[in-house]
Amino acid sequence: MKIAILGFGSVGRGIARIVAERETGLVITAVADSKSGCIDNNGLNPLEVIRAKEETGLCGKKGVTPEYIIKNADYDALVEVTPTNAETGEPSLGFIKLALSTGKHVVTSNKGPVALNYDELSHIAREKEVQFKYEATVCGAIPIIQTLQYGLAGNKVKKLYGVFNGTCNYILTRMADERLTYKQALLEARELGYAEADPKYDVEGIDAAIKLVILANTIFGMKKRLEDVEITGICSLTSEAIELAEADELTIRLIGEIDNERGTLRVSPRVIPKDHTLVVQDTLNAVTIETDLAGEVTLIGRGAGSIETASAIISDLSFISNCHDRSS
Amino acid sequence: MKIAILGFGSVGRGIARIVAERETGLVITAVADSKSGCIDNNGLNPLEVIRAKEETGLCGKKGVTPEYIIKNADYDALVEVTPTNAETGEPSLGFIKLALSTGKHVVTSNKGPVALNYDELSHIAREKEVQFKYEATVCGAIPIIQTLQYGLAGNKVKKLYGVFNGTCNYILTRMADERLTYKQALLEARELGYAEADPKYDVEGIDAAIKLVILANTIFGMKKRLEDVEITGICSLTSEAIELAEADELTIRLIGEIDNERGTLRVSPRVIPKDHTLVVQDTLNAVTIETDLAGEVTLIGRGAGSIETASAIISDLSFISNCHDRSS
Repeated sequence: MKIAILGFGSVGRGIARIVAERETGLVITAVADSKSGCIDNNGLNPLEVIRAKEETGLCGKKGVTPEYIIKNADYDALVEVTPTNAETGEPSLGFIKLALSTGKHVVTSNKGPVALNYDELSHIAREKEVQFKYEATVCGAIPIIQTLQYGLAGNKVKKLYGVFNGTCNYILTRMADERLTYKQALLEARELGYAEADPKYDVEGIDAAIKLVILANTIFGMKKRLEDVEITGICSLTSEAIELAEADELTIRLIGEIDNERGTLRVSPRVIPKDHTLVVQDTLNAVTIETDLAGEVTLIGRGAGSIETASAIISDLSFISNCHDRSS
Repeated sequence: MKIAILGFGSVGRGIARIVAERETGLVITAVADSKSGCIDNNGLNPLEVIRAKEETGLCGKKGVTPEYIIKNADYDALVEVTPTNAETGEPSLGFIKLALSTGKHVVTSNKGPVALNYDELSHIAREKEVQFKYEATVCGAIPIIQTLQYGLAGNKVKKLYGVFNGTCNYILTRMADERLTYKQALLEARELGYAEADPKYDVEGIDAAIKLVILANTIFGMKKRLEDVEITGICSLTSEAIELAEADELTIRLIGEIDNERGTLRVSPRVIPKDHTLVVQDTLNAVTIETDLAGEVTLIGRGAGSIETASAIISDLSFISNCHDRSS
């Protein structure tokens, strides 16, 4: 299966490296970053494109734009991993629409377009009989979307809850284990690169809430927006609160929950037993899916990181490729 | 997608009930048990077939055999859930071969044919361009096969280990929690229906070992047989051993492990920290997959039970159906 990659930062290059080094059955025919692009319909040498990008800052010729590639390159699936504004979903949204409309499969790691425009995008995909996939947008390398769409197909999901933000989980783990204050733990998370300079998006629970919106709209057919999520972050948690919990063999985790029967979405710090399955350490994510047939299924793994994101993208491509090969 | 069901015990009826009560996109055109069968190429009424079976012990007319259905009914996928001898794989093996050879997809819950004859069966499936799926054979409702085949595609799996047998896990949980002896805990497991009258298959580690053989041969391309697995069961574990472990915040679990780098398979009781992710309670199963890109991914859920098995079968059918719809 031929793929075109838009966005050649650490995720895009990670994907190219995997294609170069492993038997994925994938061929890269086009790559674009924000300033340049390259096309070879017989297949680019991924390692050469990576080297060009790392040496010159450009992956190809100036003037070869994402739009040009979407319209003119020979590919089956677009890998859309551009740096994108989470609030507007652009430029990702425009690229995805254009590619789907021209009858190409699309795989993205960008939360914005999925959280904001899933209905429209999946409508175009259905009309054009192509796939629109977004495993990388929720819980990094954990195949949560695939598990919900296929692994637990036929089940009614009653509730889904868990740890969706690794930065908050790291801070809470450190506050409990080392008796750090919130500020000390946040500082440490920043130094280790787990938190942004402006950590608002993570610590106020917005990132976890967006992931809930994605699951609610794409899996459970809800029509939620970020404003519909009841959100409490971890910023005002005191070390005393955590110490109090720990004294009773309890601890605190930032839990996101979709109640599929009530149709409600919530993100809040909750006190849970220390031996609970969802009490994962450091930056891990963990999600429990409560179903009627399969009972509870829990998935635990790394929720972020560029190589983990690349892993999720390859997983989506592999899924499409399996169907693609069968239908072509 | 049209399906034919062979075997109409609790799993077969569970599948029929799900098809009757939910929007699965599946139509049942044929059903057979060991003594009878029925066919309606326009779609049977699943609830009527279930009622007939439960009232008369027969699902249809005598003389309508599985072989007749495989050859003559109009269906896309065969659901093979017959009672089958795990050592010979029959009658399941013959049914699966026949269906694949006539160009039908096959989904099975029977471990025997998958553990013993995967190479041959997958070869026929590839030749006929149909799918052969077996999610239900390992860890019940946990989508472990799908996660390995698609969710973590592109990853190199270094190791895979976990709790593959719910009966043993129940016995070990009870020995630790209630200070029961092995014999007392086994008796309790029997009374609750978690252990067979002859518990050998579970407590000697054979069931866990067969699951490892299935994963080794179908996912990792090994050529293993049951004899290749180094097996130690839990029968000779003393309460003293468990008490000793518990005193140090440790406990004992029966762990199955595939070392994909060394090519070795092992099932044995192991001492692990009580707060380890794999220390699940009661009859739960838990598996950790160690990969190079996604890191460690752990799945926890119910490893047995007829409705859980039905859930896994529906998951496989849904996967095939998604591809089937796209290619037809």
